[in-house]
Amino acid sequence: MTDRRYMALALSMGRRGQGVCWPNPAVGCVIVKDGRVVGRGWTQPGGRPHAEPVALAQAGKAAQGATVYVTLEPCAHHGQTPPCAEALIAAKVARVVVAVQDSDARVSGRGLAMLRDAGIEVTTGVLADEAARDLQGFFLKTDLGRPFLTLKLATTLDGRIATATGESRWITGPGSRRAVHGMRLRHDAVIVGGGTARADDPSLTVREFGDVAQPVRVVVSRRLDLPLMSVLAQTAQDIPLWLVHGADADVSLQKTWRDLGAELLPCPLDGVHLSAKGVLEALGKKGLTRVFCEGGGALAASLLAADMVDELITFSAGVVIGAEGHPAIGAMGLARLGEAPRFDLVSHQRMGQDIMSVWHRIEAQRHPR
Amino acid sequence: MTDRRYMALALSMGRRGQGVCWPNPAVGCVIVKDGRVVGRGWTQPGGRPHAEPVALAQAGKAAQGATVYVTLEPCAHHGQTPPCAEALIAAKVARVVVAVQDSDARVSGRGLAMLRDAGIEVTTGVLADEAARDLQGFFLKTDLGRPFLTLKLATTLDGRIATATGESRWITGPGSRRAVHGMRLRHDAVIVGGGTARADDPSLTVREFGDVAQPVRVVVSRRLDLPLMSVLAQTAQDIPLWLVHGADADVSLQKTWRDLGAELLPCPLDGVHLSAKGVLEALGKKGLTRVFCEGGGALAASLLAADMVDELITFSAGVVIGAEGHPAIGAMGLARLGEAPRFDLVSHQRMGQDIMSVWHRIEAQRHPR
Repeated sequence: MTDRRYMALALSMGRRGQGVCWPNPAVGCVIVKDGRVVGRGWTQPGGRPHAEPVALAQAGKAAQGATVYVTLEPCAHHGQTPPCAEALIAAKVARVVVAVQDSDARVSGRGLAMLRDAGIEVTTGVLADEAARDLQGFFLKTDLGRPFLTLKLATTLDGRIATATGESRWITGPGSRRAVHGMRLRHDAVIVGGGTARADDPSLTVREFGDVAQPVRVVVSRRLDLPLMSVLAQTAQDIPLWLVHGADADVSLQKTWRDLGAELLPCPLDGVHLSAKGVLEALGKKGLTRVFCEGGGALAASLLAADMVDELITFSAGVVIGAEGHPAIGAMGLARLGEAPRFDLVSHQRMGQDIMSVWHRIEAQRHPR
Repeated sequence: MTDRRYMALALSMGRRGQGVCWPNPAVGCVIVKDGRVVGRGWTQPGGRPHAEPVALAQAGKAAQGATVYVTLEPCAHHGQTPPCAEALIAAKVARVVVAVQDSDARVSGRGLAMLRDAGIEVTTGVLADEAARDLQGFFLKTDLGRPFLTLKLATTLDGRIATATGESRWITGPGSRRAVHGMRLRHDAVIVGGGTARADDPSLTVREFGDVAQPVRVVVSRRLDLPLMSVLAQTAQDIPLWLVHGADADVSLQKTWRDLGAELLPCPLDGVHLSAKGVLEALGKKGLTRVFCEGGGALAASLLAADMVDELITFSAGVVIGAEGHPAIGAMGLARLGEAPRFDLVSHQRMGQDIMSVWHRIEAQRHPR
């Protein structure tokens, strides 16, 4: 029970790194000596230092003989810094409690073996499911080459995101909108389709949370036919803007956007559209572990049809606008109900006048271990 | 506090009559003597006897000097039976606690005055909002000539009720379906549009609850072009089936359905469709107080557009099928988002793998008092 309590603390520490420590996993670490927390750490922005050295530095000599709770198996390989397993051994800790093992072949099991060989007691599997969920983006990137994908839908009770004439501000309330900004913060990038970029002229930045590191902004647009007089274009120098496009996008447009400060990521087609898998693999290759999709209907439909949505978050407002309204999910081309992607209900709560619910992809339970 | 507790009991008694005691209100009554419940009653099937005489009969002589909790002001006029206010006076009760006053001009305030004139202490307004909600169908019928309308939507996460090819069994799970049968029971009638009757060949009966009184089944079909080889047609002799149709419906079809056992209710048109208001007024004229609409998209849209949906209950299943699917709500013809009907979130809960949420029409707060 005490192990679980300290691991829960380590998990909450780890979440502080979500959205800012990519391409590395957002790990948390807590060091406990004689029932007192003597060190806490989490993966720092950009991915270094790791959680363990941060916590060890805070603990100092108190680490000797202490128990270390860490959400992911300590690394064992010499990368840019010495391995964390070595640092723990050098600090003479007595026991290490780990939530999940690494899936990286260079690490898996080796960090634990190093610790055991040094005479340190090792316990694994404490709050493993929770840790696996928090670190799923890192595992997916390592195993499948694509980030974890969260899809947010903010709709009317009949699943619409705008009236026929495009009116959409605001369907959901201020509480829901603030929650969405908080979710953006916990992801490495926010992604929308070209249609949404054209219709809404969004900034895709995190507001209402003070001076925070902004997630990368990604727009998917095969032809790069995005308005040049837009907030995204005007802010591309200041806040990262990546454009995922087809190889056939106009070359002068490619240059224009590059000159504006955007980074261009070419992506293969799947029929006439960009491949959903290709889009996510392009982002995985760039190191992203957690991506937050905010529509529109066409991009959401293509990600769902490719079964790439790991988490689905819906905000439903108490209003109905009818079938002329724009649907939250575009055409998916399903032949049968049995082919439709299915999700498990994880939680639901009131958010002001709206209701928010969180769903996990059922198939996703295969990942991670 | 004690008053509220006994009134809550009276309210739960009253709900037992919902769905079976129309055209009368589903009133509950509890009689308390020396801290002990000596009588309980609720409006009986068909509306007679009222709740008070049932509870008085149970209490017998113990009613003398007792406190009576009744959810609606006791009636004061001589109808088919002597007024309940007289019965309470004759039983020599000491005090009567009432939740809401009647809106019927023949009763309003007069029942209370009769009691006070007889020297009985009268308290009003205890759990008035809850009682007003439970009795809203009766008040709406009395004041506006139409029943309370609940609209149920059972949809995918993107607001669809069937795939493009019509596959719809089963989107929501068994827990949700059982809950729907329980809701049918608490309404006087279940209503669907002709499209749903044609597509699903439904029975619209309450199952899984044993041998219960079935709600009236209502189908809205301007032209009465409903399949004659359907479950509804085959069961029309046994379980009430009412067909709301246009005056221009084929006369021989009208005769056919009448011969099958259906009752026909002509209704005015609003453009090319039956008027939503007209449909509900036809049902109110027949005495219905609570109607449960189960779609389809066209009927739901017309009721919503006419702002006639008092309560909206959604069941959302964790599946997404895309924009080719049939929408839960058809075209509503709204010009602006500001015209869309809005609802307040009342409650939400997990129902198996689905989520159920209950919403009340915001405008509806004007009714009843």
